[in-house]
Formats: sequence, C-alpha cells, structure tokens
Amino acid sequence: MTQRDDASPSGDLLGQALAALRTRESWSAFTGAVPEGPTWDEAVAEFTTLQGSTLELVGHPGIPTLQTDEVSPYTREPLRISYPRARVEELLDAAQQASPSLARLDPETRIALCVAIIERLFAQNNLLGVAAMHTTGQGRGMSLSGSGTNALDRGLEAVAMAHEALSRAPRTAEWTGVFGDATVALEKSYRLVPLGTAAVVACASFPAWNVYPAVLANLATGNPVVLKPHPSSVLQMALAVRTMREVLVAYGVDADAVLLATDSMETPNTQELVTAPRTRIVDFTGSAGFGSWIEANATQARVYTETSGVNAVVIDSFEDEGRSIRAIAGAVGLFSAQMCTAPQNIYVPETGIRTADGILSPDEFAQRLTAAISDIADAPRRAGAVMGAIQSDRTVTDVAALAGSLGDAVVRPAVPYPHADFPAARTLTPLVAFIDQDDQERRGGECFGPVVFLIRTPDARAGLQQATSDARTHGAISAFLYSTDEDLIDDAIDAYAEAGAALTINVTGAMPINFSAAFSDFHVSGLNPAGNATLTDESFIAGRYRITQSRRPARNSKGPVLK
Amino acid sequence: MTQRDDASPSGDLLGQALAALRTRESWSAFTGAVPEGPTWDEAVAEFTTLQGSTLELVGHPGIPTLQTDEVSPYTREPLRISYPRARVEELLDAAQQASPSLARLDPETRIALCVAIIERLFAQNNLLGVAAMHTTGQGRGMSLSGSGTNALDRGLEAVAMAHEALSRAPRTAEWTGVFGDATVALEKSYRLVPLGTAAVVACASFPAWNVYPAVLANLATGNPVVLKPHPSSVLQMALAVRTMREVLVAYGVDADAVLLATDSMETPNTQELVTAPRTRIVDFTGSAGFGSWIEANATQARVYTETSGVNAVVIDSFEDEGRSIRAIAGAVGLFSAQMCTAPQNIYVPETGIRTADGILSPDEFAQRLTAAISDIADAPRRAGAVMGAIQSDRTVTDVAALAGSLGDAVVRPAVPYPHADFPAARTLTPLVAFIDQDDQERRGGECFGPVVFLIRTPDARAGLQQATSDARTHGAISAFLYSTDEDLIDDAIDAYAEAGAALTINVTGAMPINFSAAFSDFHVSGLNPAGNATLTDESFIAGRYRITQSRRPARNSKGPVLK
Repeated sequence: MTQRDDASPSGDLLGQALAALRTRESWSAFTGAVPEGPTWDEAVAEFTTLQGSTLELVGHPGIPTLQTDEVSPYTREPLRISYPRARVEELLDAAQQASPSLARLDPETRIALCVAIIERLFAQNNLLGVAAMHTTGQGRGMSLSGSGTNALDRGLEAVAMAHEALSRAPRTAEWTGVFGDATVALEKSYRLVPLGTAAVVACASFPAWNVYPAVLANLATGNPVVLKPHPSSVLQMALAVRTMREVLVAYGVDADAVLLATDSMETPNTQELVTAPRTRIVDFTGSAGFGSWIEANATQARVYTETSGVNAVVIDSFEDEGRSIRAIAGAVGLFSAQMCTAPQNIYVPETGIRTADGILSPDEFAQRLTAAISDIADAPRRAGAVMGAIQSDRTVTDVAALAGSLGDAVVRPAVPYPHADFPAARTLTPLVAFIDQDDQERRGGECFGPVVFLIRTPDARAGLQQATSDARTHGAISAFLYSTDEDLIDDAIDAYAEAGAALTINVTGAMPINFSAAFSDFHVSGLNPAGNATLTDESFIAGRYRITQSRRPARNSKGPVLK
Repeated sequence: MTQRDDASPSGDLLGQALAALRTRESWSAFTGAVPEGPTWDEAVAEFTTLQGSTLELVGHPGIPTLQTDEVSPYTREPLRISYPRARVEELLDAAQQASPSLARLDPETRIALCVAIIERLFAQNNLLGVAAMHTTGQGRGMSLSGSGTNALDRGLEAVAMAHEALSRAPRTAEWTGVFGDATVALEKSYRLVPLGTAAVVACASFPAWNVYPAVLANLATGNPVVLKPHPSSVLQMALAVRTMREVLVAYGVDADAVLLATDSMETPNTQELVTAPRTRIVDFTGSAGFGSWIEANATQARVYTETSGVNAVVIDSFEDEGRSIRAIAGAVGLFSAQMCTAPQNIYVPETGIRTADGILSPDEFAQRLTAAISDIADAPRRAGAVMGAIQSDRTVTDVAALAGSLGDAVVRPAVPYPHADFPAARTLTPLVAFIDQDDQERRGGECFGPVVFLIRTPDARAGLQQATSDARTHGAISAFLYSTDEDLIDDAIDAYAEAGAALTINVTGAMPINFSAAFSDFHVSGLNPAGNATLTDESFIAGRYRITQSRRPARNSKGPVLK
C-alpha cells in the first residue's frame, strides 16, 4: 500500500478514502504512521496492569463481572479482567435512550464523529494490538495490521460509503404538478431516519476486522450499537468501546450509543440479543451454523452475516513452482488458518501439475508443500510471526480428533511448534492430509484451524467444478487458482463469479494470497452460504437508514392553484 | 406534472428520469403522450374478444387453465379467460434456464431492455387500462394513470435508480500494494452478479403500481422474475407479461426471464413460491398478515414488502374549511379507499376545529364531511370516475358486518351508488362512523375499503400522539395533518418521521392528497409494519445484485516484485 504523504493520521482521511473508493486502487489510511498513544512496550505494561482489574466504561449499565472465559492463547493464563455485565433488556433500554442524541446529529457530523473514532482507535493501536494478540492468538504483526490498521481501513471504507450514500439522498424539493388544468406547487422535505438499534456480534479470532465496519456503518447512519464480543475474546472490543464512548461524549452524544454486551460460554445471551424486538439490525460474524440460525430467526431485524465456507485452491499448472508452493504454504500457515479467507481444500490433478520442469505428481506436490510448511514451522521466530497461536482449545481438540480419523492419509501431522517468546503458547502447525473427492463430509465443511486437505481429481477442470459446486452449496469466501491455461482461467472466473467466491489467480510473492485490501477487495459476495453481506458495497449501507418525507403547499408560491 | 417536450414516448426517457431523480422535482414520462397501440374503444373491443378465450404466452410453461376467480367488478360477469397454469417447480426450472441469457447482457443493455419494456407497455396503455378496470374495479381515468402512466413512471424510476447504482460499481482496478520492501501489482476485475430468481407477488386492487418497479428493478439487475398475480386480478399482469416476453425475445433473452404464476383461491401457490429454496428475492404487495408471514418464513430470500397500515388524518384547524373538507372527502372516496395511501382514522379535537369562521364541533365536521362525500356519491358520473367499483365481494361483506356492529355510531352508511355505465357494478360509498379512541380493535387495524372512523380526542396533540403511535405499532404509509399552528406542524413532522409515514400537510385542491408522485415521493418508509421496502430508494436496488471479483498479477507490469 502506498503510504500517506504525511506521517500523522490526521489530514483529510475522508477525502482520500473517497478517492480510493472511486478507483479501488491502493490506499491505506495509517500505514507508516505512528500512533500517538502508547508504544508497544507501554501497551504491554498497560495490559499487565489491566489483568486482574476491572475495565471501567464510564456510565455503562451493568455490574462488573469477571470474564472467566478469557484466557491468553500465549500465556494460557486467564486474563482475570472484569467488564460490565448487563441484561439484554438493560442494554436495549440504554441504547434506546441514547438513540435520539445520535439521530439528531446531521449526517455530516455523524461522519466526522466516525472519522474521529477511527483516529482515536489508531492512536491506541498498540494497546488494542496487545489486547488482540492475547485474546485471538494473532502474532504481533497481524494484531497491529490485520486487527489494527487494516481493520480501521475497512471501517473508514464503510464510513466513506455511508457518506456517499447519505450525500446522494436529497433533503428538499420544490415540486409542481399539473392536475387537469390546475397547477399544484408543493415544498417537500426528506429526512434520513436510522432504522434502529444494531447488535454487532463479533467472532473470537478476528473481531475488529468485521466489527469496525459494522459499528461505524451503524453509527454513520445514526443507529446505536450493542457490541457483543465472543466471551473468550472481549478485551480488544471492550477497549474499542471505551474509546468510542469517549468520542461520542466529545460530540455531545450519549455514550450509550455504543454498548458492550458481555456474556459467558455457560450462559450466552446472543440469541436473546439478536431476536429482541427492539434489535432492528444484526451484524454477525461467526460460524455458518449460528449465522443460518440468525438469518432464520432474527426476522425482526435486517441481518448482515459473514460466516464461513470451504475455500479451495485449484491447481492446474505452475509458472513458477517454488514461488507458488511457498505462497500456498504461507496462506495455509497464516494465523494457523484461523481466517475466513484461509484455503482448506487443495485440488491436484491425478495426472500431475504441469511445471516448467515437467510434471509434478500429487505425492510430489504434497512433499513440496509440507516442506514449504516446515520452512515456516521449523524456524521458531518465523513460525510465531506467521502462525501465531490457536485461539481456542477446542480447535486443538478438533484437529487432533480429525487427525486420528484420517490415519495414514496424514502427510504432515499437526503438532505444536515452540514459540520463541511464549513457551506456554497454544500452537499448532497445519495438518496436511489426502482425502478422497467423494469424502463429502470432510470436503464439504469448514474444519476451523490449520487443516489442509489434498484432493486428487481426474484433471484441473474436475477440481474447479467440485470447488465451485462446494462454494455454492457450503459457502466460500476466497478461492485460488494456479494455471498457465488462459481458457481455464476464463472459465474459472465465470464459475467463481457465479459461485460467489473472490478468486485470486497465480499470485505469489510478498502479499499473502488471502489478503483482502480495504478500498479495493470486496469481501463476501452474499451469493453463497458464507454470508449475505459484503464489505463494503452499497447494500452494506443502504438498509441501515430509511427516508421519510413531508410535503405542504409551497410557501414561496401563492399555494395550490385551484381548478 | 410538466409534460414532455415531445409528444411521443420516445426520446431520452432515461436521461430525463435521471435528471428528475436528482432534483426530485416534477416529471412524468408519458403524460400528454398518445399510446401507439389500441385506442380505448379498440381496447374495449379486444377485451371483449379476450373474454372466454385463452391468453397465449408463446413458449410459456404450463397448461391453459380457466381462471375461475376472475370476475369484472363492473359487469359482475366472469372474464372466462384461460392462462397458462404451471407448477411452481416448473416455473423455477424455466426461470433458472432463462437466467444466463439475461445475466450475460451487460448492465447497459439490460437498462435499455427495461426502457423498451416501459415504452411497449405504454403503447398498450389503453388495453392494459381496460384490463385493470375490469379486474381491480378502478375507474377508467385511474386505470390509465394510476395503473398506467404513473405505474410506468415508478417502473422507470426503479430502472433509473438501478442504472445509477450499476454505473457506480467499478469494473476494473489496477492495484499496487507494498508489503515489506516488495511491491505487488495486481489487476482486478469486478462483476455484477444477479442474486437469483425473484418472485413478484401482486395485490388484487392495484397490481401494476408495485409490480412494474419490482419487475424492472429485478430485470435491470439481471434477475429472472416469476410474477404471481392475485387469482382474481390476472388479466392486466398477464398482458404485461406478454409484452415483457416479446421485448426479452427482441433483445435475445429467453422469454422465460419473465413468467406468470397463476393459481386459484382454492389452491393457492404463493407460499410455495416465496419459500422455494431457488427463490432468492421476493417482492410482495398485499395484506399485513401475509406480508409478516413472508418476512418470517421466506428467510432464504431477500424480501421486499409493501403491506398495509392505518393511515390517519389529524385535524387541528383549517385555513380554508371547505377546500380542506373536500380534499379529505376526495381521499376517502378515491377508488373507494382501496389504496394503501387512503386515510381511515380521522382525529377531531373534542373542543372543535378552529376555522376562519369560528369553531367547528366534531359533529358539525362529521356533517360537512358526509355532505362532501355525498357531493361525489350523488352525481353518478362523478361517483364512477372517483370511486370506481369494489374489487372483491369480501370487501362489501366486511363493510356490511362492520356497519352492523357499529349501530348508531354510523353517520353515513355504506351504500351502493348507481354506476352510469355499468348498472351491475359492485359499488359502495364510504362508511363514516364515530368510534371511541379506546376502541383499539377498530382503530388499530386496516378495514380494507371505504371506511372512515371519526375519533374524538381531547385535543389535536392527543390525536397526533395516537396516530403516530398506531403508525409505529400497526403500520402506516401516508398521514395527513390540517393545522395553522406551525409548532404543531413541526412536532408532527418529527413524530411522523420517527413513525415512518409520509406526511401531507394542509394540502387541498386538484391533486388527490394521497397521490404519490414518481421521481419525487418515496413510498413506504420501511420503519413501521406497513412494509420494509421503499419505492424507490437505494435499498430497493442495492440488494438485488452482488459484486464478485477476480485478481491476478498485472500483465502490463513484470509481475509481482519479490522481496
């Protein structure tokens, strides 16, 4: 990404964001800028202080309650932080009370408020990053970029889209109509009215990336937000809520326009929150199963979901075998594939992959892929930077059970790697195994975490057909193709457009192939079961506000001319 | 409405529509133009020929089946027309097969196709008008305007909105990102992908007005349409489908991109159609009950509803008593209040209405309103032009039952008026009755057809509060206020903006006060139970297509630069 000309995060962020959106070329708001707030080391110290304490959100409803489910994937120690715990009805009451103070701001002021939130969150980037690291398991770099600057970019993108949409809506019109031989002159005024309280439900492993766009799209269009973090991954969201509430107050808005809804694994409250009659908008990121439940049950709300799918790599031929295999290994390893864009199913033609040096058999490909994974896994510092830690114990258990069931189909076992900085870290290298193409159960569902299935197909087209069919049926967000055959590439573009997965073709090099760029890459198509909402297109904004109108005889005329 | 400069419907319709949308000032595509097709008399003759015959839709799936529920409200004779009757699965198969031929057109061509449909429908305006008259009961004038040129304007408005939205979406981008000290150059392409088959469900009394925008919004964004008319009101929609299919073929698109789904009152198929997994979009106009059922059950689809509500007139004071009361009587009488914008509940302050000539008591107001209604009802030719006929026997039965239950609270009974041209016409003048403000059952529900409740309230503000509270709870599309008190007007604008009903203030004269102007008035706010979709704002378009993307190393560069 090109760096901003000035090194500080101030300046005309919105104007630059709008320009980026129009071209969808490369831009990032904060890359290269230094946050005003704590340094990394100061942030680590602040995190240490926070542990065992109560995170205060001034004036927030609820009673401080220990978040027992929150355990650092790096230290395996409970964070022992208390957050306000309120009943759903209390939160919805507070949101409703705060609503007018947000709704009465004109759209331009709400946009400015949102930009101020983004700038203040960036100022806290190191602290939010430490919090992201010790809740999600992300490596330090990813916690500062993917969960930091990138997530803020996606949030700014939503604000810019909202600004465009709100600006296009007219506010007044002078209207003259002819009825028979009479002319009627009316003055009309239009008002943008927020839909109502939004519940933003975050996932455990990557909350900021979806939460920032959702919260900001809601605030920009005037809707108060109840942010519901995963019970095992609260801290970053709680700190973000604290910052957002400070900015709200600075803009004269009731702080309760952004609220934190905590719960526990034992007594979850998400179902109650998303189906409450007063919840008019739901933004959900999480499992496909729960996403479907929400789509089917939160019928009182406008529902935006990003869930999960089965992302595939279809391999036909490599222009550069080594670079391509390293790129695939990198995507498989990145944050231990705990990302919605991580590939899981890799289709390899039985007849082998064409390369500059001849044909690579499926077994040879498996060897070289596992070797490339080992290059990452066997260098502890690199392993930590790329793979980070595993967010949930359950992922480790699930992967172990899967490995057991696969027996000798496993070509590389999932094993902990030693983390250079955190000896207790919950780590896991990718499990690589062959499965049959007709193993529908394994092929057709997401195995969350570092799992790669190698699937032999008669040829690359058969792999493409299976992968796109699975995308339509089971959902997919990203897709990857390696081929030197332009006809196959064209067909893959068509097939994935219909299946609704974002296709990356022949990409190698420094960019993770499953990187999704704000202002340029749309994320989730809404065409398959991996979610119904796109970051960030017009439909992500349009439904969050409505237009009402009033009309009366024009006062600058003599009123209606009667027939 | 200002007339078009040229008298023919050709010319740059789209350009003018776009200009009108930007200002929301007055414009209409066809007012003053003469349709190329049959004259009114020729259309009447064609309608006579159609009766007892089979309406052929070339190549349409299904078996010609007599539409036994279709009876003219004017002649009370069955139309005896047969239409193709196909199973829902057959229709969805045909739509799916037609889909690629529509989807592969570029957006510009689809927009041109939609404009051509509008022009061809206008050419048939008299025939479609006769059909509307003898299915809905509308008077001749309304069948040509409200169900004709006005409905086509709303359709063109949807096409213009779609054109704007589709034009804003980028198709390609050159993207360059910096990762570490490497620069990655990618070329990206974006594709607009239709969401999938749309079921457009029409109401019996005013199908064209909502169907044209829905069908055209779907076609413009590439989605095939299964149009489901009410079993008692098929002919106009069948003729429109015939014209649409002809235009589709002329554009090289499979005619089955628009299909007609007929059923009968005895064996309805709408529930099956709207909940079928392959139905991805539902546009529904009809009762609040069925609309809620669809919103709760068609969770596989994106659902756009316009249902019904309880529209109110709040009276505080009249600047011109006579003109104001005539305006209210006109709205109550227009098409016998079988319109979703017709007022039902009229709030009158117990202490009387302030006028230039003193105070008008509720009883005096009731007398003058019924006198103004009588002025319409007692002049048969005027009565026919304004009130038309009653679409359904059930409306007559329901109003009679209501009248019986009201006893001597009735101040003007609902009685048939003699129609000047059709002695057998099913007609009914408005029932006017006082009800108590706490009569929640009558006040809170829509009594479909010509029913007016007069409700005494302590003062106008109490009426406003009740009316806006009912709008929020039970739904409302339009609202009316007569007041000379600017503070009350301001408060009413605020209250109705929150309640989500379009407010018309102090309007009198030649324009029916519940007239909704294409390109200017938004219709249905989406904020209350009277529907979730607005004609025609961005959210009416944005959800019907999605954006997919592919990316690969830029071919005009030397490919990714490796670190």
